[in-house]
Amino acid sequence: MSDAPPRHILVIGMGAGDPDHLTLAAIKAMRRAQVFFVLGKGREKESLTRLRRDILAEHLTGPYRVVEAEDPWRDRTQDDRGRYTSAVHDWRHRRADICERLIIEELAPGECGAFLVWGDPSLYDSTLAILEDIGDRGTVEFGHEVIPGISSVSALAARHRTSLNQVGRPIHITPGRRLAEGFPDDEGDIVVMLDGHESFTHLTGRGLWIYWGAYIGTPDELLVSGPLDEVADRISRIRAEARERHGWIMDTYLLRQGPGAPGGA
Amino acid sequence: MSDAPPRHILVIGMGAGDPDHLTLAAIKAMRRAQVFFVLGKGREKESLTRLRRDILAEHLTGPYRVVEAEDPWRDRTQDDRGRYTSAVHDWRHRRADICERLIIEELAPGECGAFLVWGDPSLYDSTLAILEDIGDRGTVEFGHEVIPGISSVSALAARHRTSLNQVGRPIHITPGRRLAEGFPDDEGDIVVMLDGHESFTHLTGRGLWIYWGAYIGTPDELLVSGPLDEVADRISRIRAEARERHGWIMDTYLLRQGPGAPGGA
Repeated sequence: MSDAPPRHILVIGMGAGDPDHLTLAAIKAMRRAQVFFVLGKGREKESLTRLRRDILAEHLTGPYRVVEAEDPWRDRTQDDRGRYTSAVHDWRHRRADICERLIIEELAPGECGAFLVWGDPSLYDSTLAILEDIGDRGTVEFGHEVIPGISSVSALAARHRTSLNQVGRPIHITPGRRLAEGFPDDEGDIVVMLDGHESFTHLTGRGLWIYWGAYIGTPDELLVSGPLDEVADRISRIRAEARERHGWIMDTYLLRQGPGAPGGA
Repeated sequence: MSDAPPRHILVIGMGAGDPDHLTLAAIKAMRRAQVFFVLGKGREKESLTRLRRDILAEHLTGPYRVVEAEDPWRDRTQDDRGRYTSAVHDWRHRRADICERLIIEELAPGECGAFLVWGDPSLYDSTLAILEDIGDRGTVEFGHEVIPGISSVSALAARHRTSLNQVGRPIHITPGRRLAEGFPDDEGDIVVMLDGHESFTHLTGRGLWIYWGAYIGTPDELLVSGPLDEVADRISRIRAEARERHGWIMDTYLLRQGPGAPGGA
């Protein structure tokens, strides 16, 4: 494309919210970057952006720039699977427009920029797909690499001191909306993410055990575990109160089926 | 049980092999421990034990003890699912016998001991189940906590710069042996672990894309990706050569189905 030195982008997993989840690799990567791109997310934006800035201030000694942009509006009303996927693709495309502009305008050729991603960039995060989209456009040349992070799933299991799997059995990680369409019947454990609709309340009566957590790794962390039939109402109540208090909630849970559930047959 | 101050056990995720995968929380936890327990695993023991000792030497300044024990023999001949599970439970029980003895004999009341786990303790690792087993025996009182680590799954995805999931779709993490019994038909991505039998070679002709990696995060790392039909033979060959050269292999792979596979419809 051009003879200018290439731009380089680092996609850095920051862990699930606990600043101590940062890996040495993440800190080394942060120190290579001159520019940090932050796309805000409405109400959760404020506290998460502050946490990111605190982390940068703690670990960086040289100069750096933080470039913030408003996240594009996303249509969250689509419940049908096809329309949901297309709404997400549409939103990602508009995010890619913004990121493309940031890379071209805010990152000089030869500079290194970073996206700081909560959790692990490989798990239900759009940054990698957006960079691929921008790369496909061919409007700006850049290399990129990915630094893995502690996911909210690993953090959830650690806080509950449980495995995600039972001996020889699979694990299913699924968006909440998929759970409504069918329940895996292979005795595997199920991790539910992005569940805005409390899908677990429809799964009582199956002998499931739940390990639930919200704001995992932060001072606001909430944890509940127990037989789903007994604790579902309590989780709903705690969840509603916390959402009201914070203005947003990010929660994840593990559902364990079969005799492996503590207290199971 | 007694009035002695309780023993404390830390189960610390070390990441997938790259010393820079260590989190700040893991380093802080390591510095709290006076004793490190290491159960060797045959041929892979040597290089992994050395790596663990290097990590300890780099990050610890105070005195500490490393206590090594021989891993009990495990029956790996059982292919039937029920017998496999029972062979694993039997092996874990004998591992628990050894760990129980280590905790009683090598950790004084009030001391803090640590198990260093490669990857993430919540993902196909037996340490947590073993501690639960020992706790149930009631022979020695101890508290324990878990520090999450970068799993080989996260590291695999990061090295291939890909997500583990596609928009709105589930992820299945499965032991290789389970894959032979049935293939998820829900368009989800599939992560295969503990696959000693190259199950992927039986899955050609389905339009799958594979992201494969071995010794991820170490200087011996091997990575291959591409349409499974085109690269399956090459992975088998590389895998056999590496296994021969090192005496052991630890590999993981992601199978992507559907139009989300690069080059797919």
